[in-house]
Formats: sequence, structure tokens, C-alpha cells
Amino acid sequence: MQARSIFQNISPIDHRYSLSEKNLFDALVPWISEEAAVSSCVKAEIALVKAHLTLRGQDTQEMLTALKKAEASIDPEIVYAEEEKTRHNIRALVNVLKKAVPEAVAPLVHLGATSVDILDTALAYRMKGVTRSVVLPLLKKLELALCDLVEREAETPQVGRTHGQHAVPITVGFALSEYVSRLGKSILEIDERSKQLKGKLAGAVGAYNATSVLVKDPEALERLYLSELGLEPSEHSTQLVEPEYLLRLLLEFNVAFGIIANLADDLRNLQRTEIGELRENFGADQVGSSTMPQKRNPWNSEHVKSLWKAFSPRVMTFFMDQISEHQRDLTNSASQRFVADYVAGFCQAIERMTSVVQGLGVDRDRLMYNLRGGPGSEAGKPGQAGQAIRAGQGSGIVGGVLAEPAYILLAETGVSDAHEVIRRITLKAEQQALTFAEALEQEPEILARIGGKMAELGLVPSAADALSFFRQPERYCGLAVKKARTLAAKYRRLMSE
Amino acid sequence: MQARSIFQNISPIDHRYSLSEKNLFDALVPWISEEAAVSSCVKAEIALVKAHLTLRGQDTQEMLTALKKAEASIDPEIVYAEEEKTRHNIRALVNVLKKAVPEAVAPLVHLGATSVDILDTALAYRMKGVTRSVVLPLLKKLELALCDLVEREAETPQVGRTHGQHAVPITVGFALSEYVSRLGKSILEIDERSKQLKGKLAGAVGAYNATSVLVKDPEALERLYLSELGLEPSEHSTQLVEPEYLLRLLLEFNVAFGIIANLADDLRNLQRTEIGELRENFGADQVGSSTMPQKRNPWNSEHVKSLWKAFSPRVMTFFMDQISEHQRDLTNSASQRFVADYVAGFCQAIERMTSVVQGLGVDRDRLMYNLRGGPGSEAGKPGQAGQAIRAGQGSGIVGGVLAEPAYILLAETGVSDAHEVIRRITLKAEQQALTFAEALEQEPEILARIGGKMAELGLVPSAADALSFFRQPERYCGLAVKKARTLAAKYRRLMSE
Amino acid sequence: MQARSIFQNISPIDHRYSLSEKNLFDALVPWISEEAAVSSCVKAEIALVKAHLTLRGQDTQEMLTALKKAEASIDPEIVYAEEEKTRHNIRALVNVLKKAVPEAVAPLVHLGATSVDILDTALAYRMKGVTRSVVLPLLKKLELALCDLVEREAETPQVGRTHGQHAVPITVGFALSEYVSRLGKSILEIDERSKQLKGKLAGAVGAYNATSVLVKDPEALERLYLSELGLEPSEHSTQLVEPEYLLRLLLEFNVAFGIIANLADDLRNLQRTEIGELRENFGADQVGSSTMPQKRNPWNSEHVKSLWKAFSPRVMTFFMDQISEHQRDLTNSASQRFVADYVAGFCQAIERMTSVVQGLGVDRDRLMYNLRGGPGSEAGKPGQAGQAIRAGQGSGIVGGVLAEPAYILLAETGVSDAHEVIRRITLKAEQQALTFAEALEQEPEILARIGGKMAELGLVPSAADALSFFRQPERYCGLAVKKARTLAAKYRRLMSE
Amino acid sequence: MQARSIFQNISPIDHRYSLSEKNLFDALVPWISEEAAVSSCVKAEIALVKAHLTLRGQDTQEMLTALKKAEASIDPEIVYAEEEKTRHNIRALVNVLKKAVPEAVAPLVHLGATSVDILDTALAYRMKGVTRSVVLPLLKKLELALCDLVEREAETPQVGRTHGQHAVPITVGFALSEYVSRLGKSILEIDERSKQLKGKLAGAVGAYNATSVLVKDPEALERLYLSELGLEPSEHSTQLVEPEYLLRLLLEFNVAFGIIANLADDLRNLQRTEIGELRENFGADQVGSSTMPQKRNPWNSEHVKSLWKAFSPRVMTFFMDQISEHQRDLTNSASQRFVADYVAGFCQAIERMTSVVQGLGVDRDRLMYNLRGGPGSEAGKPGQAGQAIRAGQGSGIVGGVLAEPAYILLAETGVSDAHEVIRRITLKAEQQALTFAEALEQEPEILARIGGKMAELGLVPSAADALSFFRQPERYCGLAVKKARTLAAKYRRLMSE
Repeated sequence: MQARSIFQNISPIDHRYSLSEKNLFDALVPWISEEAAVSSCVKAEIALVKAHLTLRGQDTQEMLTALKKAEASIDPEIVYAEEEKTRHNIRALVNVLKKAVPEAVAPLVHLGATSVDILDTALAYRMKGVTRSVVLPLLKKLELALCDLVEREAETPQVGRTHGQHAVPITVGFALSEYVSRLGKSILEIDERSKQLKGKLAGAVGAYNATSVLVKDPEALERLYLSELGLEPSEHSTQLVEPEYLLRLLLEFNVAFGIIANLADDLRNLQRTEIGELRENFGADQVGSSTMPQKRNPWNSEHVKSLWKAFSPRVMTFFMDQISEHQRDLTNSASQRFVADYVAGFCQAIERMTSVVQGLGVDRDRLMYNLRGGPGSEAGKPGQAGQAIRAGQGSGIVGGVLAEPAYILLAETGVSDAHEVIRRITLKAEQQALTFAEALEQEPEILARIGGKMAELGLVPSAADALSFFRQPERYCGLAVKKARTLAAKYRRLMSE
Repeated sequence: MQARSIFQNISPIDHRYSLSEKNLFDALVPWISEEAAVSSCVKAEIALVKAHLTLRGQDTQEMLTALKKAEASIDPEIVYAEEEKTRHNIRALVNVLKKAVPEAVAPLVHLGATSVDILDTALAYRMKGVTRSVVLPLLKKLELALCDLVEREAETPQVGRTHGQHAVPITVGFALSEYVSRLGKSILEIDERSKQLKGKLAGAVGAYNATSVLVKDPEALERLYLSELGLEPSEHSTQLVEPEYLLRLLLEFNVAFGIIANLADDLRNLQRTEIGELRENFGADQVGSSTMPQKRNPWNSEHVKSLWKAFSPRVMTFFMDQISEHQRDLTNSASQRFVADYVAGFCQAIERMTSVVQGLGVDRDRLMYNLRGGPGSEAGKPGQAGQAIRAGQGSGIVGGVLAEPAYILLAETGVSDAHEVIRRITLKAEQQALTFAEALEQEPEILARIGGKMAELGLVPSAADALSFFRQPERYCGLAVKKARTLAAKYRRLMSE
Repeated sequence: MQARSIFQNISPIDHRYSLSEKNLFDALVPWISEEAAVSSCVKAEIALVKAHLTLRGQDTQEMLTALKKAEASIDPEIVYAEEEKTRHNIRALVNVLKKAVPEAVAPLVHLGATSVDILDTALAYRMKGVTRSVVLPLLKKLELALCDLVEREAETPQVGRTHGQHAVPITVGFALSEYVSRLGKSILEIDERSKQLKGKLAGAVGAYNATSVLVKDPEALERLYLSELGLEPSEHSTQLVEPEYLLRLLLEFNVAFGIIANLADDLRNLQRTEIGELRENFGADQVGSSTMPQKRNPWNSEHVKSLWKAFSPRVMTFFMDQISEHQRDLTNSASQRFVADYVAGFCQAIERMTSVVQGLGVDRDRLMYNLRGGPGSEAGKPGQAGQAIRAGQGSGIVGGVLAEPAYILLAETGVSDAHEVIRRITLKAEQQALTFAEALEQEPEILARIGGKMAELGLVPSAADALSFFRQPERYCGLAVKKARTLAAKYRRLMSE
Repeated sequence: MQARSIFQNISPIDHRYSLSEKNLFDALVPWISEEAAVSSCVKAEIALVKAHLTLRGQDTQEMLTALKKAEASIDPEIVYAEEEKTRHNIRALVNVLKKAVPEAVAPLVHLGATSVDILDTALAYRMKGVTRSVVLPLLKKLELALCDLVEREAETPQVGRTHGQHAVPITVGFALSEYVSRLGKSILEIDERSKQLKGKLAGAVGAYNATSVLVKDPEALERLYLSELGLEPSEHSTQLVEPEYLLRLLLEFNVAFGIIANLADDLRNLQRTEIGELRENFGADQVGSSTMPQKRNPWNSEHVKSLWKAFSPRVMTFFMDQISEHQRDLTNSASQRFVADYVAGFCQAIERMTSVVQGLGVDRDRLMYNLRGGPGSEAGKPGQAGQAIRAGQGSGIVGGVLAEPAYILLAETGVSDAHEVIRRITLKAEQQALTFAEALEQEPEILARIGGKMAELGLVPSAADALSFFRQPERYCGLAVKKARTLAAKYRRLMSE
């Protein structure tokens, strides 16, 4: 066996990440290593022999057993040694295989096939396999971990943010249900696309030239061959299967990757020192910085984002590989081999994100602190909000996230420039270091209109209670809780179907 | 009206290509110009007012007529002037609109909506519109032009090529049916994806905060608003509609673009001086080169490929725009505006390719000449094939495309190293400047085995007729004709559904 | 004149951004509009006539004046009309030009040139011009605005951040000097690359076939022609100038674009509600949100980042355009036209960033507040740090940014596990809601060792003063001030050279 | 040692290509494997200890020897084991190293450094090393192989092609000298950029906070540390070295990659069956197709193009890695590790292209055949050119490549519409199946004018000899031979400097 120290490998996939995510690596090897590439081609060649035998009525049990044995006996190393002579990988495999199968069927090996009938079929088999056996289970695990978190934190208040600025209240569960919804749909798409991968046995240029000489119905032979591998034929083939079946699966991988990267960015930012609403699990012995002992970095989320930067641009290669001149050129050969790297990198990101989500700490005190108004909000008395820390001015008016309902309610009372009226009140709150509720209080007429409307709409018992609402931003969170619960329940169900 | 000379525009879309493809440009303006952006936002704002009126039971005919009039009255220029003050495009539009609608409904304008409730909805409306009104009709026209050509040339023999080398025979129709099949499926995907575009009325952070204050069932209000525009709501919203609805449509555009670029490359190459099988239409007065009067260039196919190079990489922007921090940041705003450019460039490529396909000249003599063996094939006597032009050696053995059936038939007679036997015969043919048929003739035993097999399989009346087969490569074209016809018929039907 | 409403244009460059950045647009039109494309070709054709006349000794003053007049007389519209006949842009121009010049020199028009001798030369002329007349001045203005800010804020304390976590102190000027240094070097590179753009007069395939027939020294004619336009010849030409001269300039544009995007991200994040250290200028009437009156968004910085997302991936097109088959194919023709869009988008980003930097508000109180420890730092008494807001725990220990010097100083006294010792003290500070100084105070032995070392190194007068240092993080800022000043001074000087 | 079967690796770099290009892989391991990553960090840590010792005057020979021994003793596996505890790679390395060095200097290990002071410095060291020890020698070998070929084939006539159409004559050497010129300049750029890679010892946020506490002149310490590794300091650092030093090197790699990909495309196309001018070396036992025994594919050139498709888009990652928030986030960490893959893929392409160029077969007969007119040119009698194969019509007029000089010479006689006159003659030649010389012969007046001009210019002895020129296209090749020779000589010299 040609072995090599793991540390002498060049690709991080084959050294660093094969160690840090060892179980994942081991799960991928049977599908996307070189060993898997060779063995899936062996499987395809044997499937072809079987199809020929079936059509000829010679598929005896004895023969099938012998073929199974031959299939198991092929070592990639021998194939590689043969390739050094032929400099053609499939011809090498055929030579080796002819010696491994019963002599009687040796002439049937590769009969009627061109290399790509085997290679593209084997690739579809592997990609379907790795998607359904590794990628989808990983994704579903992440989705379910998100559902758990959404349900657990469905009611935990959080400030909603746009442009990095406080906007209006939501809940933690609602924020995360975004990813349940987006990732959930992507998982369903991946599931569907993986089933649509196709193989072929249409010969050198896709016109069934060779098999037309050999059999009455070449398309029946093709279906027989592919069904052995759980596949169907490409609607049209050149030497290649139509590239779009695989392309669309890979694009959807990249869609899911982008969703996960977005989640990673959200998690990274919510762990900023000044925000501190979430925290990645951190081992007791773990070191955050080699020189700053107090540091705890959101490095797993950063890692996921970094993987996205490494792999996402590779879709350009997938798109370039659509183009093959005439009935095919070979310029998609090397490039397509690196699809394996992409799959490994994508899986690495899913796995890491799942462990982040599963171990995510939620700091409810800090969430409430941020929601109620950021630096300065602790000061409670009129006229003193944030006085100690004037720095808080402008970027975080205590209770400022309730400017929106104030404007809307005021507008509903028939005030046409309600938006402008409230904007001026927020400016005043800022300049005088008031909370928004305090600033409203200083405008009794406006407050009365708003309170009246609130009472009318059943938001508060009476107009006099309006101020209590403006002191508790968490009450203004719309359908956040309901949406979070509904989405978690829906996708929890869909994932188990 | 702020007008500008077309020639002072910077983007080729707005000068050169708006002239060369004027009808296309005119068809796009109502959907993806800035005028369209503004008017679709007006349409969305009016739809929102209507939804409010409906819920309040105030949607009288008179009011609807007044709103229709208001909608038609808004000029983008006025909105832009207002934006100079507000520096916020939707607030500007709202200000203008409030003055345009009946005073009674002014407070309902934009009520409960955040800017993006309008912007993202209007974008979905425009993208759905342009796809269904412009992109899909263009694509179907191209697909039908391809179907026509496939049917016309279904039986026209052509040499199949892999690696730019002669492989085995096909037909012109078969080669083009590849694109019928690939593009056809992409059209169906685009059709489907365009129907899935979504809008929203879920407020500043997607939790229906504002509308929850205003109405009992905010999701009902959202559905009412969107139905007015033929849309449904995003399953979850932040400030934004989930980005993947649009992303998947754009990715499928790029898939179709890649297919068309592949076709362009094939057409370019088949017009090479040495190949000359196809030819783009060429006007009588047209000049191929400013300095080489004999030139006729496949410049339209080149143009299509060049557009693909310009636009295909922009998918990276589409993927980057998936990521928006928390309930949204604005970093997808400018970038998303350039989706309009992408659509224009894509349509330009479809339109140009359609005109190429419609005017494509097919040189049947040259096709047969190439199929029968390239340079040298005209010499007919034994031992003299290509003698005059020894240059032909190696790269094109006359009749060499029939090496494959010779090998297969020989293998079927039980010769295990048939591939090697035939390979040696092709080497001999090359070295001695023989046609493949001549070289076979010099190996009577092998020829007899092959001929016997052929007679047995019913490919020739008797073994003695084998050589006639090896002198007529066009007879070895498998299911090429059948596949071409089947695919053209299928997609012709699907396009008209 | 073919005029069109600006709002009917499709590309945002030609509508929205041509209005919002009108002066910039007007500065770009003479270089990268279609008008500029045509007029620069006219200029090149005239330069060629002059070169012929010079070699023939016929370049009389009268003739030169006539040519100047002819050059000025060409209207793009007429050329376009002619192109409808020839369907070849340069042949059209030549036809028009032959009628515009004195009859005697009409045969010299375009003599010996292939279209691309004109087109590629004119492109180099325009790209050099736009770079030196528009791009570089814009970039230098931004660089100088950064230098101003760096010098003004050289000493303003700020917390340094890694992974979004507080690390150790720096100054605002130091943080911004990063961009002075990076952007400064990029400007120098752009300056250099722009000078290296080349033209050509080497004919249809670069071998000077035509001009070799016409003149003794075709390379001398080429130099003469190009010198008229301030250019030198490509070292080797095919039909095209070597693509790398332009490619390297565009890549450096994208390098600078990335630097500016990084700055935009930093500015965006420092404007988060919870951070609030910086603020973009905000007009008195400006509206932050159509529905949330309190909002003030860092939308200009977001806009810059968004432009980067739109344009940065286009480098893939630039790289693809390196490849042209044989002596050229036309597949770089359309794609290269969109370089104009890229330049416009890049300039838009520079301009916008400059206005952000020039108007940037710096909140010194907030900076100090953040540096001293984030939420909770206002509490000053032992054992009560952040008690009120337990949310602050872990992500922001008051004074935690001084854990590093504590560890280093302790290590210098010979304590081998100093890092671990200090890490445990930070954990204790967190658990007991102490400031870092308080927690140190509770470890008198360690504090004594550290204080002793500090006195020894001259950092404090005596060991007893150590605690005062740990209460003032801003004192631990290394060479931040010096580096900021040095870099600003250096690049200020370089920009004016 | 953790070993793994090569065939269980996932990345093609670590299985297939590590075998097919074994020597290259072995040359890369000491620079870009994980082993190299660890050992270069050890080297950097030791360099830091040395720098400290030097400043303290304690750098005795004995100590230096001990450090050298310690450096050699570190096994990556032990570091990895330690990292499982610390989950921080550099802290793990430091722990291991402290035990390996003499106890007296253990406190100096990593003193004053942050992890990235080591990591970024070690990366610069490795990238500089691999560029100067592996990449540049490979590139120079390719460049010299090209120079050899250019000189050998400097005078070999070839038809120049634009748009895939015959244009005017050149020579094989001239065509290849394009790549000598383009690649040569790129090599010089890479050489320069590799020298500009920088390291750092500026601490956690780049402000020398820690080292300012430890030493008088922290920048002197940094220079001392880096000089040990042959590096200089980044002009400004955050936690990171400025990203552009490495970025520009990688971009220039991609520039060179594009040039090589262009060469690959040219070689692929010139090996098409119908063109056949060049041929890749082909082993005697090599199989072109598993099913078509006659096939010989340009698969090495295709392989190079395919590698370009796989790696070129990764520049997007390089550009994205420019952006790091504040004084750094970690989102460039994983992505940057894959630079190793890029370097390996790039080297693989260079190596393969070198072997193609070194073994390239040139078919001079075929070159002449193509130049003289493509299919049909063998027929020599008037009126019968290509008669046998009318297929040749239009795309290849025999001698049509001389339409250009005919037009230019005619124009020089004062015929203003010379281009149109000659274009009509080429049309006639095509319609009547004449060679261009024959068609000219039928226009005696025009021929006389042209011949007169030729005699006048010294191109032929007398006007009567004009036709002989038009029968020998190879005479019209301008400065092709001279340019080829000049460029080969120039770059041969530069490569050895």
C-alpha cells in the first residue's frame, strides 16, 4: 500500500481537516476519495457485464457470484500500475478487470462502452451516494439543531437590527427561524436534485453507435446497465452526460453554503464584545489568544465563513465545465475531479456549524439590556438616561426601537406628518439624554393621541397605560413568536419525512 | 425630461447594444429601466393602499379609479427631485404619492410598510414580469429555431468529434439536438422559478411589528397586498424577502447562458477555415476585416461567447448578496441594481444566438468530405490515399472513424485483444497512407471475421459486403437520427404548452 | 442627436449613479462613454495619417491643420449609421473619415492598419487617460482625506479588536493609518501600471505583414504612430496588444477596491448601535428609515461595500479575456467593452468613500467608554463592576485589554506559566464581576512582581503605581501614535509628488 | 506516524497528481505541506528567541547550537496532539517548544509575539521559498523550452488565423514567441513580487503594544527577527501583515496561469484532425480512447486548460481575503490554507505544459498545405481549384491569405476603393473555384498596377513576377522571423540572469 504521512499532504482537506473532523473524513472516503473513484468504476463495469449477460440470458447465479467476487478484488494500486503503461485510466481498469472476471465473460467487459459511459455514470453514482448518505444527513442534523434552538428561544426578546442599527424588537427564536426556513427549503432542493443525477451508455459521441451494432435496442441496454446502479439515463448524451444534472446539484450546495455563511456572520457579530448576546461553546482548557489571556473568539463561526470564502467561488469552475466542444473535449476532466474537494469543504462547514448551534450559549440578560437601549439604558430617572455615558448618544436612544409604533399609531389618528413628528422627538431625546418614553411624556398631546389609539385597538387597557408600553420594548414583537414556532414545527416534520 | 445623448452613456447596454438590438432594448425598458423601478414601486404602494381599503371595506369604485389615476401620474423625475431632500428613495416616493392620491387616503399611503416591503415586492414583480414577458419568449424562440434546424438536418451526416479529433459518425441534427435537450430543460426550470418569486409586507425586521398594531391578521393583509401584484409572500422575511427565490432564478439564467455559450463555441469551431461545415449568415455588403478582404468571421457566435464571459462571473455577486447581517444590512442594495444589466446581457445573447441559428448555413459537401477522412480522402486508389498531401497523416486516416465498429465486431467474434489488433491496423494505415478500408482489406482473416459477424447481425447482406460498409462511414451513426427527431418533437410540443 | 430619457436607461451607471454622482459621471464621459470610444479611434486614425505623412516628409502645417479639423468634425452618430451598412465598426469609421480628410491624404487613411491597430491603441489611450485624469486624482483625494483624519485622531484612544473581541488598545489614527499605508501603495502601483499601457501597429496578426510591404522599418512607423498618442508599442502583438498590460492595471484597481471595501466594513461596524464610535455625516432633513424615525444608517459605507460586491467578481472576466485563440478570436470584444462599467463603478466607490471619510464623526467619549470595558464599566467600586448589568460578563471585562501586558511583565519576572496565571485571573474577574485591576489587586504577590518589573522598565515611577496603569488602558498603546503620524506624513508627501 | 493510503485522500492533489507528477509533489512538500507549515512556524519561533538573545547579548554559540537542535526535534504530530488540548495551534506549538529548548530560554519562547507574528511570517517565508525554489525554476524551464522551439521553428511557415479563419502568413516560431514574450514578463513580475513578501512582529493589533513594554525599539526587534528568515517587516500591520504583498504575488501567478492556458488552447486547436499542424508526444503503448483505436488526443493540453478552470476562479477567494474586520477577524484563516492547493495546481500545469512543449511535433508538410489554401489547394490548374471538393468553397480560397497585400499595393497606386475591388475578386474566386492568383490573373489591369507597385518597392524583380508572389503565401510574413528570434534571444538571456 502506498502510504504517506498525513502531514505530508498538501491540501488542508487531507491533513488538518481530516484530523479535526475525523469522523466526517472517514464518512467521505468511501464516496469521494480516489479509492472510491476506482471502485465505483469497477462497480459500473461489472454492472455493464451483468446487463449484457441479462440480455443474453446468461446471468446465472454462479456467474453473478463470480462477478461480485471480481468486483471486490480490484485494488486501485494495481489499476494505477497498469495506467502507467496505457496512460489511459479506463483502459487500464479494463485490462485489470478482464483478468479478474471468469474468462468466459472477459469479452463482455466494457463491451460497447466508451470510457465516459463508465466514468460519468460512476461519478453520478458517487455524487448521489455522498449526497444522500453524508451531505443530507449532516444538513438535516443542522436543521434540527436549529429547530431545537428556535423552539427553546422562541420567546426570548432580542432587538431586531438593520444596518447594524437597532430597529424594532423580535425574539431570538424568530431571528434563527430565518435559517430554518431558508436552509430547510435548500435541503428539500438538494434532496430532489440528487435524485435527478443521470448516467449513460450511449457511446463515444452519444449516438449509441457501438451498441447499435451489438444489440437491438441500445436504449434498453442503457437502462438495464444504469438501473443496476440506481440511475436513469441522461436525456441526451454526447460523450458526456448532460452537465446540468450535476451542475444544478452543486449550485444548490452553494446556495445552502451561502445560507450557512450568513448564519455564521450573524453569530460572529452577536458575539462582539459590545453585543455579547450569544457565545460559542468554549472548552475549559481552551486558549483564545496566545498572548491575550482574556480573549474568547467566535472562531468556529469565523471558520465557517472562511470555508465559504474558499469554496463558494468554485461555482465559476462548475459553470465553466458546462462548456465542452462538440461531442466533448477533455477540459472538464481535471477540474471536475476537484468537485470532491468542494464536497469535503462544504461538509466541513455544515459539521462545524452544527456543533456551534448545538453548543450556542444565549445570554438573556444581555439581550434584554441591549433591547432596552444599549449603553446608558441602566439609568432610569427622567433626564438622566445615559448621562454618565454621553457616548451612548445618537446610536442608542433608550427605548428608541419603539419610535415606529409611535409613528404608526399617531398616523392612524390622522396626523399626516406623523413620521416627522416622531423623528423630531427622537432627536430631542438624543440631545437631552432622555429615554424615548421620557421624551414622549414631555409631549402630552401626542402621547394622548397615541394612547387613545392604543386603547381603541386593544393594545393597552386605557390610554393612560401607553407609557408602560413604551418602557417595555419586548411587548412590540409582532408575530415573531408565532412565526418561529410555526417554522420550527414545519421543518422538523419535513426533515423526518 | 432629463435626456442624454445615447453616445454619452457609459454602459454598452445603454449605447451600443441598445442600438444594435433596439427592439429588445425597447422590450426591456418597461421592466428593468429606472423608470420601471419607480413605476413598479408606485404600483406596489397603490396595491398597499387598496389592500388597506379592502380590509376597511372602503374600496369603492370611485376610489379605485382615483388611485389608478394617481398611479399613472407619477413621474420618476419628481421622485428623484424629492429624494435629493430626503436622501431616501422610498420616503421620497411616499411624499410624492401622498400628494397625488385623494386626501382621504393619504394616511394609508405606505401605512404599516417599511421601504423594503415595497422595494423587494416591486423587484419580484419586475423580475417575474421580465422573465415571463421577455426572457421566456426569447428563449422559446431560440429553442424552436433549434428544433427547426434539428429536424431539417436530422439525417445530414457529420463526423462526431471528441478532443477535436474525429471520433465516430453522427448527424448535424443529432449534434444540435444536444442543445434542444439541454436548453429545453433549462427553459422549463426558468418558467418554474419565475413563478416562485415572492414579495413581502412583514415590516422592518420581518416580524409584522407595525401591521400587528394596525390589523388583526397581518398575514392576511400581506396576502391581499401581494395578490394585487400576482405574488405570494416569502415564507419568512427579515427586512428582506428570502434571497434564494430570486437567486435560484438567476442561477438558472446562468445555466441557460452556459448552454448557449457552449453552442456558440461549437458553431465558432465548425466555421474554422479548415472545417467549414457551417456558416453564419453574411450580408452582401458586410466587411469581415478592415484589411483582409477575403475574411468572413463567425463574429456573432463570438459575440455570444464574449457576452457569457462578461456576465457569467456575476453569479458571484448573486451569491454574495445572499449574505445580509441580522435582519438586513444594505450591502446588497447597489449590487442588486445590476441584476438589470445581467438580464439585458443575457437577453442580448439569446437574441443574437437566435438570429445565428435562424440563418445558419450548412455545407453538406464539406460535411461529407470531412466525415470521409479530411485532407487526402479524395484520392481513391489503394496505397495512394492522401499521398499527394502527406500532411494528412495521423490526424485523419480516411475512414478511420470506423475503427470502433471494426474493433467491436472483431471482439464479438471472440478476439480478446481486438482493440489492440485494430489499433495496429490504424497505425499501419497511417504509415502507409492507406484508407482504413484498404488497410482492412490487407488483413483478409480479420476482415472475414468482421464480415461474418456483420452478416450474422444483419448489418450487411453477406460477409463479402463488409468493405462497402467501411467505405461509407455515414452508415455507422447509431440512433443519431432517431434521437434528433424525438427530442425536437418533444420540445417543440413543450414550448407551446 | 439620439437622446433618451435618463430614466429609460437600464444600467444604474447610466441612470441612478449618473445623477447621484453627476460630476463624476461628467468627468468620465470624455473617456469611457461610446462618444469617447469613437473619438479616440478618430484620434488614432488621424495619428496614423500623420505618421505616414511624416515618414513621407509631407507633414506640412497646412495638412496638420486640415487633419485637426477633420478629427473634430466626426460625429459618432454618422459612424453608427455607416456601420449599419458595413456591419464593421472600424471600416465604417474609415469610410466616414476618408470623406472628411483632404482628398490627397484619403488613401493614407487606415493604410497598413488592421482594425485592432486602431481599437487596441485607442483603448490604451482611453484607459491611460481615465486613470491619470480621473481615477488617480480621486484616489489621491481619498488618500489625503485619510491622512487628515489619521493626523487629527492620531492620539485618540480606541480599543483594538480581533475577532470582534476587545484585544489591546490602539488609537483611531493608528487604525486608519492601515488604510493610508495599503491604499497608498496601491495608488503608486496604479500610477506605474497606467504608464505601461501599450498600443500597436503590427497588423492583422502582429507580424507587420502589411506595413512591411509599405515601409522600410515598420517598427519605426509603429513608434511614430503611437508617440502621437503618448504610447509605446506592445512588445509582441498578435492582432491584439498583449492583454497583460491592461489586465495588471485592472487587477490593481481591484486591489484598491478591496482595500476600500475593507475600510467600508470597518466603518460600518464601528457605527453599530452598540459600538457607536464613528458616525457618517447625516443631513438635517435626511430620513434613515421610511418607518423607523430614530434610525441613522451607515448607508454610504454599505453602498461602497455593495459596489465592491457588484464589481470585484468581474476580474474573472478580465482573466478570461486573457485567452484568445491563435492570433485572436473575437470573444474578448463585447466583454472588454464592459471595462467601462467597471471603471465607473470603481470611481463611484472611491468618490463615495471620500465623502464618508471627509465627513466622519468621531465620538471620543464613546471610544473611551468602549476602551475602558464596555457595558458595566461605569460601575467603579470593587466587587460591583457591571453588577447592575450582569450581561456584560465574559465578553467585556473592565480593563481586560490589559491582560496582555500583565502576562508579559509577569513572564519577564521568570514565571513560566504566566499566560495561564493571568488567564485564571481574568476568569475570576468575570465570575465575580470585578474589573481586571480589582482582580489583580486581590493577588498581591503577582501584582508586586508585575509592579516591580514595570518600575524596572521605567513604565511606572514605582511598583506601587502599577494599579494606576491597569486602570488606564489607553496608556498601553505601543507605537500606535508614532506609526500613525509617520505613515500619514509619508503618504501625504508621496501623493503630491 | 499517522499514515494513510494515498488512495484514501480526497483532493486530487494528494492522490492522482501526487503520483503522476511525483517529483513535483516531492519538491512541494517541504514548502506547502502541513509538515512544512509546522516546521516553518518552529523556525520563526526559534528566530524570535534568537532575536531576543541577540538584543540581550546572550546569543552564545552554544545556545545557538542548542536552539538549532530544538528546532530540528519538533514533530508535527506532537504539536497536533497538544492542540487537541489547547484548541489553539500556536499556543500548542509554544507549549511543545518550551519543553524542547534549554530551560534558561524557555521564557523567551514566543515572548512579545502574538500567534500571527509567527503564522504570517512563516507563511511569507514558505511562499517566498516555494516561489523561488519551485515555481520560478519550473517557469523558467518552460520559458526556455519555448525559446528553443521558437528558434527551431522561427522560419517554418504557418498561416496566421483570426476568428479561426485564415488571415495572413506568419511562422510557427513567431506564433510561439507570443508566449515567450507574455510569459517572460510574467516570470520577471513573479520574481519581483516574491521578494516583496513581508513578515511582522508587531503584536496582537499591530501597534507593538507588547514589545514596547519589553524593549526600547520594538521595530528593531522586529527587523532582527525577520532578517533571520530573510524577510522585511510589513509597512503597517494589524494583527496581520498587509494582505496585498501576498495577494499581488498570487494574482501574478494567475496571470501566468492564464498565459499558459491560452497556449494550451492554441495547441489543442492546432491538433484538430482538420488542422493537424502540431502533435503532442504520444507513447508507443498509449491508448487514445478505450473504444476508438485510431484516436490520439491532445489530452495534455486539455489537462492544462482544465487545471486553469479549476484554479483560476480561486482569485476571488484571494480578493475576499483582503477584507478582515478591524485589527483582524479569522475569516481568512481556513481560506488562506488553500493557497497551498492553488500553488500545487499551478505548478502541475506548468510542469505538464513544459513536457508538452518539449515533445511537441511540428508537421511542416501539413503547415504548408494549410497555408496554401486548405481543402482543394492541391488542384493546380486554372478553373479547377478545389473542383473535386466544392466543400472548400468560401472558407478557404487557395491563396486567399494574400488578399491583404493585393489590397494594400493597389491602394498605394492611388485606387481609393482598393479594399472593395479586391473583396470582389475574392468573391469571384470563390464562386468560380479559382485560386486567388488565378482570379487576379483574370484582372490584368489590376494585376499590372499591383505588379508595378511591387517592382517599385523592390518586392519582386519586375511587374511580371507578381503572380509568383501570389502563388507563394509564405513570402508574405513581414517581420515574423525577426520578431521570433529577437524575443527568444532576449528572454533566454533574462532567464539566466
